[in-house]
Amino acid sequence: MKLHEKPVMPKGFKCTSKNCGIKNGGGDISIFYSETKANAAGVFTQNKFPGAPVILGREIIKNGSLRAIIVNGKVSNVGTGNEGIENARRMAMAVSKEFDIPQEEVIMSSTGVIAKQLPIETIENGVRGISRNLQDDPIIGARGIMTTDTYPKALSTSVDEAVITIVGKGSGMIEPNMATMLVYIFTDAEIEVPVLDSMLREAVSSSFNMLSVDTDTSTSDTCIVMANGLAGKVDEELFLETLKFACVEIAKMLARDGEGATKLLLANVLGAKSDQEARFIAKALINSPLIKTMAYGGDPNIGRILMAVGKCVACEIEPEKMELRINDKLVYLEENKIDFDEKEVRNLLSGDIVGITVDLKLGSSSATAYGCDLTEGYIKENAAYYSS
Amino acid sequence: MKLHEKPVMPKGFKCTSKNCGIKNGGGDISIFYSETKANAAGVFTQNKFPGAPVILGREIIKNGSLRAIIVNGKVSNVGTGNEGIENARRMAMAVSKEFDIPQEEVIMSSTGVIAKQLPIETIENGVRGISRNLQDDPIIGARGIMTTDTYPKALSTSVDEAVITIVGKGSGMIEPNMATMLVYIFTDAEIEVPVLDSMLREAVSSSFNMLSVDTDTSTSDTCIVMANGLAGKVDEELFLETLKFACVEIAKMLARDGEGATKLLLANVLGAKSDQEARFIAKALINSPLIKTMAYGGDPNIGRILMAVGKCVACEIEPEKMELRINDKLVYLEENKIDFDEKEVRNLLSGDIVGITVDLKLGSSSATAYGCDLTEGYIKENAAYYSS
Repeated sequence: MKLHEKPVMPKGFKCTSKNCGIKNGGGDISIFYSETKANAAGVFTQNKFPGAPVILGREIIKNGSLRAIIVNGKVSNVGTGNEGIENARRMAMAVSKEFDIPQEEVIMSSTGVIAKQLPIETIENGVRGISRNLQDDPIIGARGIMTTDTYPKALSTSVDEAVITIVGKGSGMIEPNMATMLVYIFTDAEIEVPVLDSMLREAVSSSFNMLSVDTDTSTSDTCIVMANGLAGKVDEELFLETLKFACVEIAKMLARDGEGATKLLLANVLGAKSDQEARFIAKALINSPLIKTMAYGGDPNIGRILMAVGKCVACEIEPEKMELRINDKLVYLEENKIDFDEKEVRNLLSGDIVGITVDLKLGSSSATAYGCDLTEGYIKENAAYYSS
Repeated sequence: MKLHEKPVMPKGFKCTSKNCGIKNGGGDISIFYSETKANAAGVFTQNKFPGAPVILGREIIKNGSLRAIIVNGKVSNVGTGNEGIENARRMAMAVSKEFDIPQEEVIMSSTGVIAKQLPIETIENGVRGISRNLQDDPIIGARGIMTTDTYPKALSTSVDEAVITIVGKGSGMIEPNMATMLVYIFTDAEIEVPVLDSMLREAVSSSFNMLSVDTDTSTSDTCIVMANGLAGKVDEELFLETLKFACVEIAKMLARDGEGATKLLLANVLGAKSDQEARFIAKALINSPLIKTMAYGGDPNIGRILMAVGKCVACEIEPEKMELRINDKLVYLEENKIDFDEKEVRNLLSGDIVGITVDLKLGSSSATAYGCDLTEGYIKENAAYYSS
């Protein structure tokens, strides 16, 4: 499986973005549009303070079909009560009117500051006439959903005659517990809704639910898939594998572009007693501030990895069995044998990708988690986010 | 209850510290000594990669009595296998010989880099003759156990005729799961071992187990109490209350001096359904990188507090009931009413102490957690800790 060199929208999908005046500069509104009705499935944040778009989105997705997605930046419409629900509805209504499609086939997302009302009239004005600017390039749509991302994220891959394209954003407040911040998946494959829904859940489980930038679970996490069927039926097993591959690839892009990040952090846990324990430990590794700063500094302080494995007190771990690799190089062996050259480990940690592999040698379960280093850039970005 | 203006060692306790050559400068070895046999209790890290001193310490503390504690810095003697156990034993042996006390009444702690063998001969040489330098000032002992702490931490308080003195260190890799990094409690009160043990556990639960600098649970957390009885019996109920008070006070000192920290972060959760949920949410608040950076920047991004409460998906939370206060000022009310002035909140966040109070209005359980802000200083400290 591989990615297309340049992402494209699958047949029948278009997108557009613009600055409608919510932000001082850059795109602040995006629309993704299917020329025909598309089967759809979605998963949302489990945060108990979900945004108005998530509350409504859960209802809308039950219909199993969508024509359009609208996304705004700067204000997330979370913690905004009934006024927030009404404003989210007005976003869908504006798109319904502009594109002449049923309101219940429009889903909305908002990202940005929590506990602030949406400038709904600015958005409504921005939507007016936007249907004249639909484009084939998913990067244009990706650009309008960026917040602190440093570049727009989109990718495409193929299954049989069909294309899968994913557009996403991440950056901060990212430890999704169902889906990532905002990820939209478009395909022209023909797939029934229940199958699409279960494929989405399986792909999310091994990609976005194994991603963390900063342990903070957003109130707006949303992952939607739309399948308009224009490319006909596909091998469903292959489709699922390809979808999983593509979701992991975009998860890596989101991790690597985490706020202030300079490196991609990969944690592989092997030989765990259960999948649940493998996932828990892999997450603990990529979330440890001391591992994240070690990766940033390229400091050969690999003992911190032992600490982070060991702090998973509910998991089965036998210290004297464990082996540890940094980018495939063994550095800590069975029987608690410390075996590494500081200079060599410093060298291994100096690249763009830091891979940590922990083999617990207790069972056959494994998991991989995706994260990034922790740098002054994260602090700078978040000490004044509200004000910027 | 109040602290003494200046900490003192209780009757019959002495301490000393020195540089024995493990570190380039500053104290790297401390000894705390009781002139008579003291009843003792202790709790240790639950990290599954415990250090050799923790493995031995758990056995030693079962005897219920201690005469001395030895502590070294720079190397933590963790992940070091049988050689590490042997080195920890040699530390106790050196003290036993120097002070002419039974080896099984000496407990040892080590703090510093993980997965590195202890320079045991340097320590043995350092202990030789150290008994000639015993002092009454706990700050001298506190100085020898510092790692990245910016100042030595000790405090004293009184119960009846008895004194309670606590010496501690914290700073990084701090989210204790039984006790904090290194905390030693000395008292001349007369208290039986089982009572002392249960009092210690209760005090630890509301203080060190509610403290987090960076979510990373050390492999060396140790909290020991020694009671030599020289001041006679005390009112045990009052002793427990005073011990809890003193442990919270030192926990606050450890939080406020977290690596790179500029502010103390207090999270109070009220009206929770259970103590467990109150504790869990309070911990989530002080551990959220986005709240920590908000506190650092004094940025009025209070929506992040809603996010951090909401991400506790296993807890009962009703968004429309919750109230939120910053330093006692209501900013978010029932029915999702956003009600704050940005300038005022900026002002509330500008002080040395940021207090967050969340009232869930669902039950009668409450908890308080202690943390600090997240700054560039933490990154700087930890990107090159091994190498510094």
